[in-house]
Amino acid sequence: MKNIKLTIEYDGSGYAGWQRQENAMTVQQKLEEALERLCGEHVKLVGSGRTDSGVHAKGQVANFYTSSTIPADRFSYALNSLLPYDIRINQSEEVAMDFHARFSATGKKYRYSILNNIHGTAIGWQYLHHISLPLDIQAMKDAAGVFKGTYDYAAFMATGSPVHSTVRTIYKSELIQNGNLLHFIVTGNGFLYNMVRIMAGTLIDVGRGKISASEIPDIIASRDRKRAGATAPASGLFLEEVYYDKKLVIQNEANDYDL
Amino acid sequence: MKNIKLTIEYDGSGYAGWQRQENAMTVQQKLEEALERLCGEHVKLVGSGRTDSGVHAKGQVANFYTSSTIPADRFSYALNSLLPYDIRINQSEEVAMDFHARFSATGKKYRYSILNNIHGTAIGWQYLHHISLPLDIQAMKDAAGVFKGTYDYAAFMATGSPVHSTVRTIYKSELIQNGNLLHFIVTGNGFLYNMVRIMAGTLIDVGRGKISASEIPDIIASRDRKRAGATAPASGLFLEEVYYDKKLVIQNEANDYDL
Repeated sequence: MKNIKLTIEYDGSGYAGWQRQENAMTVQQKLEEALERLCGEHVKLVGSGRTDSGVHAKGQVANFYTSSTIPADRFSYALNSLLPYDIRINQSEEVAMDFHARFSATGKKYRYSILNNIHGTAIGWQYLHHISLPLDIQAMKDAAGVFKGTYDYAAFMATGSPVHSTVRTIYKSELIQNGNLLHFIVTGNGFLYNMVRIMAGTLIDVGRGKISASEIPDIIASRDRKRAGATAPASGLFLEEVYYDKKLVIQNEANDYDL
Repeated sequence: MKNIKLTIEYDGSGYAGWQRQENAMTVQQKLEEALERLCGEHVKLVGSGRTDSGVHAKGQVANFYTSSTIPADRFSYALNSLLPYDIRINQSEEVAMDFHARFSATGKKYRYSILNNIHGTAIGWQYLHHISLPLDIQAMKDAAGVFKGTYDYAAFMATGSPVHSTVRTIYKSELIQNGNLLHFIVTGNGFLYNMVRIMAGTLIDVGRGKISASEIPDIIASRDRKRAGATAPASGLFLEEVYYDKKLVIQNEANDYDL
């Protein structure tokens, strides 16, 4: 028995999210079906966490146990030959038997991408949230920085989500401008349900002048979902990376982010 | 009555090409439906030419006559509010009554994009042709240059296409490498059916060592479709720009191509 770790990229446009469900195709189901064909046995894939319908991943991580004799590093090649183009395995490797894609994770990096121009874009429309109204980019940059730190983020969670604690640590949070593309990049030890999309919606409100950056500490302190911005659309969100070593999170974040 | 010119960007993935047809949704139909809603009259849209199912456009051009009082430059805004995200009008302007998107065109620029890496990409898979086998890039660059000039391109046309002449002038033809992305950029006074995709397929054969760049003049001279490469998949092809002034083609091509 081996424990195999997969690093997975997907275009979420065509899927009802990561997690397997009845009556809708998901990324997990596509992967499990390919794995079962390959291994000739039932395979249960454990992801680092769910992503919602339409959310993308550059570096989702999952693991599974198998008695297959396929060398660990060949799973990426074998799976890619069976998978559709919108799901790719960028790496496969053998890991310790106690590695668990969800419980071993020490942090995650997300990106939320906004296109701020008049007419939008037909090429790549699935991979961003288009806003045609003018945005105050400097105010959004200032506001993004306020999310850094350890806070109770209850105001930035979809109401009714069942969790033990709503305290999370954000290691890095910044808004990067590249022409008319804005990328909100946020790295933390964990994220509540819809947290990044609500943060992005709040930054958009700041950009529109509805909220000022200086109000964000109050909004966080209020623990009131209604005080934060709307949940920004799924299409702009990418799970960029999942970390399994706390040192790696910090090392990585010491470098400038290169898209 | 006014004559309005539209500059159109579209993601061809979800359409059965440009040209209106029975039993399949096309870009032309989506646009005509939006125009008829807007103008309250029957509208016939004339495109610069067809694009096949799955082929994209950054700068398709079309024109239509209307008695609508909507200012010409506002059509882009009004249409974009009615159109799906995968079709965008980047410009609308009034042109002379004798402007005809097809017959007035003096040239076109196409791009064919290839991703040459091991596992492909899930993000943006619709916008390229993935090749995992190694390619001789320098040979492909050399071969791309050979297409420049005025030749009978019968060998680079889908067999059975009804045309008066198969002679075309290619003003510029080059392969640009950007990391593991290869962009074949070709500008000419006109293109035969499937010509760019057959040129791209031939360049791929050169990259794979099946054809040498020095054989291309012979292949052109043969006028034999079987001697050229396969028709490369639609997903890599973009209609980049349509020219209506010969001077503009040459001016534009004097500058380096910036994607």
